[in-house]
Parts: sequence; structure tokens; C-alpha cells
Amino acid sequence: MPYFDAASAAPLHPVARQALLASLDEGWADPARLYREGRRARLLLDAAREAAAEAVGCRPDELAFTPSGTRALHDGIAGALAGRRRTGRHLVVSAVEHSAVLHSAAALEAAGGGFTEVAVDRGGRVDPGAYAAALRPDTALAALQSANHEVGTEQPVAEVAEECRAAGVPLLVDAAQSLAWGPVDAGWSLLTASAHKWGGPSGVGLLAVRKGVRFAPQGPADERESGRAPGFPDLPAIVAAAASLRAVRQEAAAESARLRALVERIRERVPALVPDVEVVGDPVRRLPHLVTFSCLYVDGETLLHALDRAGFSVSSGSSCTSSTLAPSHVLQAMGVLSEGNVRVSLPAGTTEEDVERFLGILPGVVASVRQELGAPAAPEPAVARKAAESELVIDSLGKRCPIPVIDLARSIGDVPVGGLVTVLSDDEAARLDIPAWCDMREQEYVGERPAERGTAYVVRRRT
Amino acid sequence: MPYFDAASAAPLHPVARQALLASLDEGWADPARLYREGRRARLLLDAAREAAAEAVGCRPDELAFTPSGTRALHDGIAGALAGRRRTGRHLVVSAVEHSAVLHSAAALEAAGGGFTEVAVDRGGRVDPGAYAAALRPDTALAALQSANHEVGTEQPVAEVAEECRAAGVPLLVDAAQSLAWGPVDAGWSLLTASAHKWGGPSGVGLLAVRKGVRFAPQGPADERESGRAPGFPDLPAIVAAAASLRAVRQEAAAESARLRALVERIRERVPALVPDVEVVGDPVRRLPHLVTFSCLYVDGETLLHALDRAGFSVSSGSSCTSSTLAPSHVLQAMGVLSEGNVRVSLPAGTTEEDVERFLGILPGVVASVRQELGAPAAPEPAVARKAAESELVIDSLGKRCPIPVIDLARSIGDVPVGGLVTVLSDDEAARLDIPAWCDMREQEYVGERPAERGTAYVVRRRT
Repeated sequence: MPYFDAASAAPLHPVARQALLASLDEGWADPARLYREGRRARLLLDAAREAAAEAVGCRPDELAFTPSGTRALHDGIAGALAGRRRTGRHLVVSAVEHSAVLHSAAALEAAGGGFTEVAVDRGGRVDPGAYAAALRPDTALAALQSANHEVGTEQPVAEVAEECRAAGVPLLVDAAQSLAWGPVDAGWSLLTASAHKWGGPSGVGLLAVRKGVRFAPQGPADERESGRAPGFPDLPAIVAAAASLRAVRQEAAAESARLRALVERIRERVPALVPDVEVVGDPVRRLPHLVTFSCLYVDGETLLHALDRAGFSVSSGSSCTSSTLAPSHVLQAMGVLSEGNVRVSLPAGTTEEDVERFLGILPGVVASVRQELGAPAAPEPAVARKAAESELVIDSLGKRCPIPVIDLARSIGDVPVGGLVTVLSDDEAARLDIPAWCDMREQEYVGERPAERGTAYVVRRRT
Repeated sequence: MPYFDAASAAPLHPVARQALLASLDEGWADPARLYREGRRARLLLDAAREAAAEAVGCRPDELAFTPSGTRALHDGIAGALAGRRRTGRHLVVSAVEHSAVLHSAAALEAAGGGFTEVAVDRGGRVDPGAYAAALRPDTALAALQSANHEVGTEQPVAEVAEECRAAGVPLLVDAAQSLAWGPVDAGWSLLTASAHKWGGPSGVGLLAVRKGVRFAPQGPADERESGRAPGFPDLPAIVAAAASLRAVRQEAAAESARLRALVERIRERVPALVPDVEVVGDPVRRLPHLVTFSCLYVDGETLLHALDRAGFSVSSGSSCTSSTLAPSHVLQAMGVLSEGNVRVSLPAGTTEEDVERFLGILPGVVASVRQELGAPAAPEPAVARKAAESELVIDSLGKRCPIPVIDLARSIGDVPVGGLVTVLSDDEAARLDIPAWCDMREQEYVGERPAERGTAYVVRRRT
């Protein structure tokens, strides 16, 4: 049963499993103790730190093990901000960072600081110049992911690091999605990662802080991990994380080439196989194993369930698959279609057959979801059916994505070319998906305005 | 090789090992995902939460899994304090809490709040009346351990909980040391624990917050664990923690009776076998598996190494075995001898033979450490050897525990009865150990005063 959500959590790598089992008997004691079980645990911890540091590209004493990538980000950002409080309380982030970064930024703002979100292009990539422009004299820290977790786009880390260096601002790089494939370009001041993204066990994150970077751990004092990660370390998991990182790195060159080709196949074939699909994310500067596309007139949750029934586990940034009722902030920042969004991230070892099977079932699955939802048969009528009125208001209030867009598509033919269709919607996804639909259909998106309830989205018929 | 430091970390329980292995294949995916691997993970997480909640004595939705007991305490205290910020910013703790609690109190103080440490008696127990007296109208939270981690003394949780209830102050109980043996008496508002103390894996703590208790998680927002424990959950470890808690509870009645008898044997026999030993902690209201004693004229680190060479792994609260150069705060709060301190905490399954072997080697090990240090042969001379001077000043500056006390013992015979010996010392342990020696030797401890360097400790010869 193919699991295509490696970007969320990868199945345990055989080396991780082996290392975990081997260290259950040796690694349960407190490495701070003087007796033999403690010394043995300390040796394991030291060896794991050396191996992980080598893979990260830092000194062992610069690297702390945290309980998760999220904690590494929370604690790393808080410590770096506090270390430079005298400089200021301003943080720069990209608009497509992991939620742990954006939530840290929100916490900073709630505590009286401030942050700037650097916009990305339609491919999800920040512009180094725009990033540099956001750096201020009171900027305490800048954060940038090495590659995006939802669309796979690689960020220009080296260029941004150079800008940060010139401005004297430390740069924290969230390397969660890329560390399996190789070290991050030099130039970072802090780096974070998460073991279960590379096939290590859950329960292990990495936080590297370069010597010389001002860092003041927040929260109650604790002597573990240089004071940067409180609590008893989960040693078997740490050993397994380090061993599997080394293992995936040895396989990285061959496996990334192989997966890159499989992803390329998905990128090319999906738009050919399925009508009205938008593949999103940078087509070239991207992670090898990840591809994301959105399907017009498709309800993300229904699609995920249908794919699950067909045996494929994928993720989605559609609003209807999240508890927030909003499309993923990444898709929003990119300004791309969010409905029927599917993220495919291939774990190591994914076979060509798995991918072919996926490509084989996808068109039918999408078609049946569309049929269920009453999506218009593509293409929408190019001539006005009635053309009686040059203005039409569609009430889609209370309807969830993708219904407002389907309502729009079914009605656009009811006005003459040049006529206006106004969609009333209180669904957050409409803000993203109606302009995206206009783009795909070469209709004109006029704009939005507040309505008595929800928002009025105005579209002018062009074809 | 007997390992006698279960209070620090217990070896993995067979059930924990089994559950961990079984869930490595089922429990790696994100339990928040909709696909089958995610649903399977969610089922495991839900089942683990139910089992752990039953053992704790709370509702499943009151219980969050944290990455460690330390994080449960840090985050639990911070959240409870923030939840009652309107009431005030005052915290009450006992003087013998785990360092994670005391460090949380220090962090509160650094942030502008305040705390009161409730003193303990020589047995390490708080008095409920004294605890109640520390509660103020602006007290946001009270914290009390169920049992002490260094000396095993059980605290009067039910009585203190009743006082807190009457004062309208939520009580957080740190149940790390006792949860294996049974649930904590009702009356707590928050409860924390740590799985590797009961033979579960490291990487799992518990934080229970009763419904109705005001709680405002601190730090960046995160949707995991009801917003109370950020980061991807370590599901195999959580499953193993819950399964092993259930297992140790089933064995608790029999095993605690068995270990209690073994500990009783150590409590009785050590003072008979080894001269000048003080067994510390409450002799009756105590954990079943833990006993602590201190050996006069013994260097804790040397003793630990010697016991390690003899095959026994124990812990110590002596200053010379810690990086802080101070005796454990627990021994300090109790006002008992700290030198040559040994904590023996028996893991489940410890045999009578292990304990007998320990009792067999201990006297020789202590004697050889004492001989190495040039400790006076007990008892010290009861008659003055010279008695030429009625006042004597001993310069023990720069000497570490237990040398200042040995210097005192070797010199007391040099003054007549009624004469004064002043020990100059800059070792923090002297403050505790010189009065303790006076107690044991029926000499009069006159007091201390600052000296040009270090502190002058004044003793009047009585016998």
C-alpha cells in the first residue's frame, strides 16, 4: 500500500529501527551519571552527536537534540531573539515557513515585538532582494526554510544568508525537509531539523547554534543539552536518528535522482491525464521527492478519502481537510488554486510501479469526485446560454470549497461576454480559488468587496 | 550487575519493550492525518491516552503527553500560572521539589513574580499547616511532589490539597516518583509524571489538567495535545509508556511489599554495618523502593566510583558528585549530613541476593574510602591530647568535602572540653556537614560568620 506522505512523517528507516533496538538495552540510563550504565549512555549520546553534527556540518558542541522539530524551532527562535534583545525585537520570516515559525512570530508580536513576512512568488520562492529589504536595524533574527514542506520549492538560502551576514543579522534555517538530501549551504547561524522526516524515529529534533551566535535559552533553567533542551534525553531515539541520518545521506545521491525522475513524471503526466489541474511549486529548484497539484472543482477531503480507499496516502493543503477552515498559508502566500489540493511526497524506496498505479487511478478518482459535486463538464459554455442579464449575483453563502467556484463556473455562461458575475461567499478558500479559476479560465477577476454577509467576489466574463 | 538507581531512570520494562516494538510499524505516521496510517496512529494514541488516564485517575481529555517529566513540569507550571495571572503571580512550592519545579519558580521570579518555599522537617516532609500558611490571596498555583526523589519521603498530598482547595488555589502534584506504585490521592488540580521512572521509555511525560482548572499554554501556539504539548508526538514511546504503566500497576502491590522489605533491611543493617552513617528520609511514610544514607568522612564521588567498581550503580546528592559544587538542595533543606551521600533505589525485580551482596561489600568500600582520605578512626579522642590552647583555628580553605569535616574531627581533641574550634572553609557542603557532624558527635555547633575568605564555622567541644 503506497504511502505518499513522507514530508509529514517517513516510515522508520531499517537502520533507525536497528539502532533503536540495539540501544534500548544500552541507552536507557541517565548519561549524566557516573556509573557504568550512565557512562555507556554518555558514549552513545556523544557518538550520536558527532554523527549528527557531521551530517549537519557543524561542531558537536554546537548541536543539541530536542524532542521534535517544532520544539527546535520554538526554542531556537526564542533563544536567538532573547540573545539579541538589545538589538531589537524584530523578526523576519518568509510567508511560507512552517507553522512553528509563524506561531513563534505571532508569539513575539503578542509579547510586544514585531515581525515581517517576506512574500513569495507564484512558485513559492522568496526573492533575496525582497528578503534583504525586510531586514531592519532592529532585526534580531531572520528565519528561512531550506525548502518548502508543502510545495517542495527550494529557497535561495545562500543568497539570503549573504544578505543577512551583510546586515549583521543571524539567519535560522529550518532544514526539516531537506536535511535528508544534503547539508544546507554554509552561512546559517542556527539550523533546525526533525528526525522523523528522514526516517528517524519521532521524538528527536535538532537545534544547531553556531559558536559566537548570541543565544539565551528561555524558560526554566535545565542543565541538559547545553541548557538548550530541557528534560531527560530520549537516547535510543537519538541514536536511531543519528544512525539513520548517516544512512539516508549515503543513499541520498542515488535515491534523489531516482525520486526526482518519478516526481518529474507526476508533474508532467498529471496535467495531461486530469483536466483542470494546476501543478504548483517551483518546477526546477525543488525537493526531489515532492510534488503538489490542485484540482479544480474538487473537494480536498473527499479526494483524500477516495485516494485512501484506492490505497494511496497523500496530504492536502485544502481548507476542507484542515481544522482551520482556511487553505494552507503556503498556497495562500503563493496565490495559487487551493481546492482539490494534493501533496505527493515519496518516501525512499517508492517504486515506479507505485507511481504508475497512482497515475492510473487518479483521473478516475478525480472525475468521480467532480461528478459527485456536480462540477461543470469542462470546458464551461463559451457562449451565453441566456445572456438575458449582464449582471448576475450568486449566493454561495454557507457553502464550502469547492462549491462557490463550481457555482461560478456553472453561471458564467448566463451572462454575456463583458457581463459581471458576483459570488457571495463566506468560505475563506474563495478568496484564493476564485481568482485562480479566473486565471485558468481566462476570465477577468475584478476584485472583492465586503458584503452584508461574507465577501462579494466580482468576475467579468471575457470569453 | 545490580543497578540501584531506579529513581533516576528504570530499565525498560519488558511490556514497554514489547509495546514499543509492536508500535514501530503502526505508530510512525501523523495521527492528525486522514489516511489509514494516520487513522491507525490515532487509534494507538487514543488507546494509550485512555490507559494512562485510567492509571492517573483522570479523564482522557484531561491528559496530555509531553516529551519528558521536566517539560510537563515546565509547561504545566507556566500554563497554570498564566491561567491565573489575574489572581496574582505568586507560587508556593516545597523546598524539596524536583529542580524542574524550583527552576520554574526562579523563572517566575526573574519575570517579576514571586514564590515561597515551604520548609521541610529533618525527614524531608512538609507540614500541611506550614504549607497552608504560605498560601496568599495572590497565590496563582501551589506545587507539591507526591514523594521525594532523593530521600523517598511521601508528602501529605491529601492534607495539602484540602488546604489548597479551601484557599481556592490549584495544586500541581509532581507524581514522578510515585505513579508506578499507585494513583495520587484525589484533590490535585494538575499532575505530572515521567515514563522512564516506571520502566517506560524516555521521551514521554504526562501532564494532566483537571477540567475547570484555568490553564493558558505558554509559548507559540500548536494544535497537538490540546495545545499543551507542541510537536509531533513520539507515538511508539507513548504506547510503550501507557502499556508499561498499566503493567507495573498490576505488579505494584506485590512488588512494593517485596521492595519495602528489602529497603527496610538496608535501613536497619547499614548503620549497624558501617560506623558513622546517617540514614535520612522519613522511615515510615516513604516510597517502597528508595533509601538514602550519608557516610561521615567520605567523599561521595570516590564512594560512587568504588561502588561502581564493585558492581553497584547508585546515585548521590553529595556536592562532589555534582557540577554545582553544592550538596543537593533536598539534603540542604532537611539539614542532614550530605557527605558520602548514597541513594539506593531498587528497580522492580531486584533480588534479595543483590541487596545482600550490596550490604556485604559496603562496609569494606566505605572503610577503604575513609582510609584513603585519612579519616580519623572512630571514635575521635574523648580526652584532649594537648589541651594547650582553648581556641584553635583550622584552615580548610580550598579543600573540598569531606576534608573540612575530617580536619575538624582530627582537631577537636586538641582543645579542652569547653574550648572552641573554628574551621575556615569555602566549601558549600561545610555549612551542612559541620553542624551535622556536631549533632552526630554531641559537640556544640556555635554558628558561622563570614571570614576574610570563605566562612568561619565555630564548634565548642562538649565531650
